Amino acid sequence: MLRPSGLVTLLTDFGVVDPYVGILKGAVLRAFPKAGLVDLGHAVPPQDVLAGAFWLAAAIDRFPPGTVHVAVVDPGVGTARRLLAVQAFQGWWLGPDNGLLAPVFTRDPAAELRALDLEHLQLHPASRTFHGRDVLAPVAGWLAGGRYGFASLGPRIVDPVPLALPASPCVVHVDHYGNLVTNVDVAATPGVGRVRVGDHVLAIRGTYADAAPGELLALVGSYGLVEIAVNCGNAAQTTGLGRGAPITVLPA
Amino acid sequence: MLRPSGLVTLLTDFGVVDPYVGILKGAVLRAFPKAGLVDLGHAVPPQDVLAGAFWLAAAIDRFPPGTVHVAVVDPGVGTARRLLAVQAFQGWWLGPDNGLLAPVFTRDPAAELRALDLEHLQLHPASRTFHGRDVLAPVAGWLAGGRYGFASLGPRIVDPVPLALPASPCVVHVDHYGNLVTNVDVAATPGVGRVRVGDHVLAIRGTYADAAPGELLALVGSYGLVEIAVNCGNAAQTTGLGRGAPITVLPA
Amino acid sequence: MLRPSGLVTLLTDFGVVDPYVGILKGAVLRAFPKAGLVDLGHAVPPQDVLAGAFWLAAAIDRFPPGTVHVAVVDPGVGTARRLLAVQAFQGWWLGPDNGLLAPVFTRDPAAELRALDLEHLQLHPASRTFHGRDVLAPVAGWLAGGRYGFASLGPRIVDPVPLALPASPCVVHVDHYGNLVTNVDVAATPGVGRVRVGDHVLAIRGTYADAAPGELLALVGSYGLVEIAVNCGNAAQTTGLGRGAPITVLPA
Repeated sequence: MLRPSGLVTLLTDFGVVDPYVGILKGAVLRAFPKAGLVDLGHAVPPQDVLAGAFWLAAAIDRFPPGTVHVAVVDPGVGTARRLLAVQAFQGWWLGPDNGLLAPVFTRDPAAELRALDLEHLQLHPASRTFHGRDVLAPVAGWLAGGRYGFASLGPRIVDPVPLALPASPCVVHVDHYGNLVTNVDVAATPGVGRVRVGDHVLAIRGTYADAAPGELLALVGSYGLVEIAVNCGNAAQTTGLGRGAPITVLPA
Repeated sequence: MLRPSGLVTLLTDFGVVDPYVGILKGAVLRAFPKAGLVDLGHAVPPQDVLAGAFWLAAAIDRFPPGTVHVAVVDPGVGTARRLLAVQAFQGWWLGPDNGLLAPVFTRDPAAELRALDLEHLQLHPASRTFHGRDVLAPVAGWLAGGRYGFASLGPRIVDPVPLALPASPCVVHVDHYGNLVTNVDVAATPGVGRVRVGDHVLAIRGTYADAAPGELLALVGSYGLVEIAVNCGNAAQTTGLGRGAPITVLPA
Repeated sequence: MLRPSGLVTLLTDFGVVDPYVGILKGAVLRAFPKAGLVDLGHAVPPQDVLAGAFWLAAAIDRFPPGTVHVAVVDPGVGTARRLLAVQAFQGWWLGPDNGLLAPVFTRDPAAELRALDLEHLQLHPASRTFHGRDVLAPVAGWLAGGRYGFASLGPRIVDPVPLALPASPCVVHVDHYGNLVTNVDVAATPGVGRVRVGDHVLAIRGTYADAAPGELLALVGSYGLVEIAVNCGNAAQTTGLGRGAPITVLPA
């Protein structure tokens, strides 16, 4: 039996300029004033479900058991699309049924999915454009505060909308440092020793400083994924490459 | 009798690059270490009281009763301008007397206003340029922690500095998604059915997806105000319009 | 005997786009779920230890006693460089041994320094590129929650890596408002009355509004340092000057 930690993380495409994130937090706190709130990030590119799913997956196993994770990247807000609650990886995950939660429920074989039953929860969204505030936030507060258990949120479902992931190795994210983060998971790719990216063939090193300052290198980053980096530099600028750039995995 | 929730929200024009917001929070926490802190936002354009007032109003009724809201957009810092405390909408609101708090005290007929009495509160600002840190933050902590009640903060006043709002319908904010947020409050504008903005006459729809992808539409956004948006797109870029652009309200 | 406040501040060069800051907070919360987390800032320019040290110093005496401050600007991550814990100014400070913590331990004559003993702490970093998450965050949580005391963290050291500070008066930071923050500490500079910067000789005034709107002025900012500002304007844009620009201190 998973007990709530009282913590709620938030991942959105709201940006940090408008007060939307603050309003979302207010809605969690109105449901559970003692909630501990953590920003997972709000710079998902607008409506970019794939990027949001990548960042949400980064939270797996990184918070105390019983943490509630709210994800809002929701181009279909206000339509008939469902809102999901997932129990997986000893936590709860809330978001629209558009693939955003797919990395969570596909990786945990014990994942359980439910569609939020707004009637039963007596939730009547005031807005057709901000279900994060009007639905997901109060549900997150109720889960985090123990007012409702996961099983009360709605019927189980088995047909969530899947996520179309890139089929072949490529750059999936350029981070703040200009590191090119790939979808090559070293734990799932035995024998990877080098990668080719653009004109470069790079051996996988241990850390940035294993290369000379300004030198391009590959390494296994903190996501457990192969990254292309420049020691004390910016690999995206150095290579001119970005999201979608193909990668070739080579033996050592 | 309003009891403190222990929560303090913060709205400033400090940006998130410098450590000013963190220092402000430290000053709240020194006064009340158990305060729960929520960023309402720190990207108000520097010294833009009108934008700050718009965002602050977005917090009305969005947090638990007894929450303290601190707003700092303060081009007159260090001068003789007063600092205000307002009790309204079941919360407390602190900020400079420059119009920033006007949307709060003008909309609540029961609002009570006080001018902070720094002598009585034994507050001696260390800086003439950071009264947010030296005055508003400790007062917020004292209110949130119950050390002082609202009535202890200073004398009642009835002559706050007003806010010069746009007199006619127009775009008042461009949000992160490029949505053009207007000052047309549908609850106060019976019969609004369409709006004209630039060369476009747009019927008011229910949500983004009621328009085709890339299509311009009008809708009632989460502020309760008419917004101009593009489904899966950016209305500011599409129309070339921004803050101040006039709107014409039309019947359906 | 310093008792933990339960608060942990975070200063990094991670930016706020990626989920790295959220993951860092998750690691603190896994060690101490009741930790109160405060962002000191995450916009230190990548690998800019000097800028990070300047911002970290801004937290001195600004938080409740017993607060833990985590600073991560760490170009040497994954190499043999040490990780430090410092007890100073009634708080604890954690970061890499690269000069980042130098303003803290050089200014407090009672500062005590220790090198984290990862073996003893049974910390086995999962990643060679994210010791903030794998080492500093759990140690911060343990300190904040009282699981470990400062003396348990590792052996005392007396040879920390120093910080190369600018030798002469200059602009050390341009803030969000375009204010040019100098390293001229008025408390340590008796007789300073005017400053020369570029072609301008400026008397030190009390606050922004002591100059006409748009006028350049000097004042003592909230850091206790001389700043060059423009009332309701941007001094960096007005003067074309930035970090490193020399300043001359003149009598009144």
